[in-house]
Amino acid sequence: MAETNRQVLLRARPDGIPQAHHFEVSDVPLGLLVEGRFRIRNAYVSVDPAMRGWVSTVANYSKPVAIGEVMRSFAVGEVVESRNPDYAPGDRLVGMFGWQSFADSDGQDVTRRVREDDLPLSAQLGVLGLNGITALLGLTLIGEPKAGETMVVSTAAGSVGATVGQVAKILGCRTVGITGGPEKAQLCLEEFGYDEALDYKSGVDLSVAVANACPNGVHVYFDNTAGPVSDAVLPHLAVGARVVICGTASVASWDPPPLGPRIERHFLTKRARMQGFLYFDHVSQAEEAIARLANWLREGRLKHREDILEGLDQAPDAIAGLYRGENLGKRLIRVGAG
Amino acid sequence: MAETNRQVLLRARPDGIPQAHHFEVSDVPLGLLVEGRFRIRNAYVSVDPAMRGWVSTVANYSKPVAIGEVMRSFAVGEVVESRNPDYAPGDRLVGMFGWQSFADSDGQDVTRRVREDDLPLSAQLGVLGLNGITALLGLTLIGEPKAGETMVVSTAAGSVGATVGQVAKILGCRTVGITGGPEKAQLCLEEFGYDEALDYKSGVDLSVAVANACPNGVHVYFDNTAGPVSDAVLPHLAVGARVVICGTASVASWDPPPLGPRIERHFLTKRARMQGFLYFDHVSQAEEAIARLANWLREGRLKHREDILEGLDQAPDAIAGLYRGENLGKRLIRVGAG
Repeated sequence: MAETNRQVLLRARPDGIPQAHHFEVSDVPLGLLVEGRFRIRNAYVSVDPAMRGWVSTVANYSKPVAIGEVMRSFAVGEVVESRNPDYAPGDRLVGMFGWQSFADSDGQDVTRRVREDDLPLSAQLGVLGLNGITALLGLTLIGEPKAGETMVVSTAAGSVGATVGQVAKILGCRTVGITGGPEKAQLCLEEFGYDEALDYKSGVDLSVAVANACPNGVHVYFDNTAGPVSDAVLPHLAVGARVVICGTASVASWDPPPLGPRIERHFLTKRARMQGFLYFDHVSQAEEAIARLANWLREGRLKHREDILEGLDQAPDAIAGLYRGENLGKRLIRVGAG
Repeated sequence: MAETNRQVLLRARPDGIPQAHHFEVSDVPLGLLVEGRFRIRNAYVSVDPAMRGWVSTVANYSKPVAIGEVMRSFAVGEVVESRNPDYAPGDRLVGMFGWQSFADSDGQDVTRRVREDDLPLSAQLGVLGLNGITALLGLTLIGEPKAGETMVVSTAAGSVGATVGQVAKILGCRTVGITGGPEKAQLCLEEFGYDEALDYKSGVDLSVAVANACPNGVHVYFDNTAGPVSDAVLPHLAVGARVVICGTASVASWDPPPLGPRIERHFLTKRARMQGFLYFDHVSQAEEAIARLANWLREGRLKHREDILEGLDQAPDAIAGLYRGENLGKRLIRVGAG
């Protein structure tokens, strides 16, 4: 094959949110495929807030990406060549194939085979991928929502948040979404069916807005942001509330941790619970979660938005853009020819 | 009866820790006992950190004590007169009888009948009372300690902490106690059997000391203090750790909440859990807990200390004294003749 592989490499270690200058795009020739391996041509690669953690050396749940290495990412693609008996050309796979046009794999970085041939391939990286599974399992396993309860989610129009809100609604909750800007607030109400959408950028006193939107208190808080949004929500927890810590998008750097109001008293007086959720602890439940999500998609009960960038040249600034809040829906990169 | 009843009344609402001037001692004549009620002569009344919350109007788990009302407290005493068929003179009862020599009751404020006639009556308010039950149930129900894990407790020599430490040891944990001052640290090691005692007043870097004492991380943190002690412990949580929020003794006022380092990231990266524990949610399990604690006491496996003040005149300053850390062991007041 005379093709080249376009790769996006980590060039410098960010202190906070990764910016365009922390990466470089490099075209390298495709080498020979080693025995036991197979080659995937990526169709889409993922852009996720969690990538900030993947390139950080601050206490985290995975080994940081090394300088000079291809940026780690989920991807979905098709096998184009194989010297491995378990994988054949044409197989469509999801895995940690990285920000590159082609990935050679021995199978260890494969997450799953695509089974939902009736649904768009891009959905594998969003509503049927890390984001959707995180939303469903984090909400149900940690949040334990019950019909009639009130569920509040931050980044309510985001790829995790929008699924959390819709699943909570399907499970019978009153749903309150916190989001930034009128466009996203409208999307929350019209597309994702929230009972209330609170725009924290509107100048409203968010704590008062939460209190008004949750007259019986907040039974489940699905937290994607930490920071000032959480400061406005936690005083309104109901007795026995559950808080799912899924992300900390509003905090630019944890080294050192920023200051905020202490929260222990809320948890004591409300006998509330807060627990971190990480998808990787629950991979054994992923297929069941994907099956539920796929069925809701087919039934039209679950909607999702995608924000698709064209080509890996868009990758270096793509994470920073997430934190600037410029995307409406799950951000992906469509991989062009290398 | 020509006797008088000595009462300690709430005179003013404290802003923070209740001080002596927030209370007044008053001797009132004992009235006639109303039909359906019985009269208890208190032997001991309790002094607890939680009383700060009971006199506060800030979000809390019980109705605040009204100005002019007898200070709410646990007490243990003996029925001296009865016009209620369910209670007879000589019955020994634990209940919310308040800071006074005599309490008239219709039975609603009775917590339990004393069954452990072989153990000192004072133990009913400490190791067999709110403190011991809170320690055992908070540790086991929320902390879920497993043999071989490391358990850290703050106010390790206190009436809750000392029982937490010893029960965790009985259950097979490595136990690390955080306490203030060399006398309490020595008590932790020699009397309560901690594997390590960390004196936060010694000038040590507490975070480093916790890291050294917990080479495998902190699996269970039983938190009685919040504040800077927790700031030193939470960065060292092990993956899957459980944090029991039982008290916030180090924080003088929650209105407004003081600032501290944000903690969500620890809970996300360690997939850890934090949950508030309040005894009153678990009263149905109290008798079983008392039976376990009483058996450990009889076997000599569970030790406890008491700090007994003589007479209700000592009551007004007694809560402030707890927060000054002047007691070694569970603080009680022995009630003299009214």
